[in-house]
Amino acid sequence: MPSPSAPDFSPEFTSELAELLAWRRDVRHFRKEPIGEDRVAELLAVAQLAPSVGNSQPWRFVRVRSAALRETLAGHADTEKAAAAAAMPDAERRSKYAALKLHGIREAPEVIAVFCDDATTTGFGLGAATMPETRAYSVVLAIHTLWLAARARGLGLGWVSIVEPGFVTDLLDVPASWRFIALLCLGHPLEPDVIPELERRGWQPRLDGSSNVSER
Amino acid sequence: MPSPSAPDFSPEFTSELAELLAWRRDVRHFRKEPIGEDRVAELLAVAQLAPSVGNSQPWRFVRVRSAALRETLAGHADTEKAAAAAAMPDAERRSKYAALKLHGIREAPEVIAVFCDDATTTGFGLGAATMPETRAYSVVLAIHTLWLAARARGLGLGWVSIVEPGFVTDLLDVPASWRFIALLCLGHPLEPDVIPELERRGWQPRLDGSSNVSER
Repeated sequence: MPSPSAPDFSPEFTSELAELLAWRRDVRHFRKEPIGEDRVAELLAVAQLAPSVGNSQPWRFVRVRSAALRETLAGHADTEKAAAAAAMPDAERRSKYAALKLHGIREAPEVIAVFCDDATTTGFGLGAATMPETRAYSVVLAIHTLWLAARARGLGLGWVSIVEPGFVTDLLDVPASWRFIALLCLGHPLEPDVIPELERRGWQPRLDGSSNVSER
Repeated sequence: MPSPSAPDFSPEFTSELAELLAWRRDVRHFRKEPIGEDRVAELLAVAQLAPSVGNSQPWRFVRVRSAALRETLAGHADTEKAAAAAAMPDAERRSKYAALKLHGIREAPEVIAVFCDDATTTGFGLGAATMPETRAYSVVLAIHTLWLAARARGLGLGWVSIVEPGFVTDLLDVPASWRFIALLCLGHPLEPDVIPELERRGWQPRLDGSSNVSER
């Protein structure tokens, strides 16, 4: 239950939040130990504190419990990774790419596919008339909430996007109005690090953030 | 600077994070006092700790400093709100909608338009071949990071989506490859509340979150 009056967050909390943001990683290396059903339920409840356009709450979480479905998803991601590698003209970049681990679908104790119900009537369409894509964006906000809540509990999350949305939608047999947003792996990270894995492995460093800000 | 070794977040922090998530609101009522340049710069730097596909960091923040541009944006949002109201068949819902305040573009001390550079080569396309929309999703993650960092500092953020993306893009004269994601109002909230404004005003309550979770 939240506190009944508006909290003043302390400078210590703000600084610990900055630590959380700095240490949140996209995790692909997991230990196999399970998370526990209570914790999964708690995280999926916290995720739904996210904002959504018109309070439409269009997020739909599908926990992949079947070992066969999980293996099909892992094989599909591997195939898509190989296809992306083959399309890279630069040999050095291609071999760097091939060496990257891009998902932990086989090892993570929890695999969750996340969808957006584009046909939901919740929220009565408020805010989505000019920008229907804000429904999908709302789902992304819930995923980020889940990510931070997980990391605060010592858990890591990996967002896998090297999958074909149509493939996942068909495989998991969800309603036709559900748009695939993300495949998530959740579990205890093997080795936490403050530097993104893609930076450590020489793929792409952080930019100077000030170059991304301009004025009008 | 983040701590050099992986932090263990305390149960107190986790519970304060839950407070932050519960008390984060979409804010449309602002006090006029300014935020301070240092704080704006700090928030825009923290926002860029967000994850992004292939570490592509495609977020582009445009601070709207011109009073004329701000008024044009406010007038445009008002026009779009009126058009959405006119399209509502149900009279009761239409009058409820008309009574809602949907943006604080005129009062907020800071107005920021956020774009996604779909043509960025940063990140070398990793993860975006199968799902190019993950670039826009990365920008949404940065907006949410900004949102939480602002709320932790007692500031409120409002995401305005009742605007036509093409209108904002033309008005702010950004590069052709920039996709409009959000118009943000940032400032001191007039009256913090734990209940979303759309719920307080009888538009749309929260759902029972468990109905959004299924298994396969």
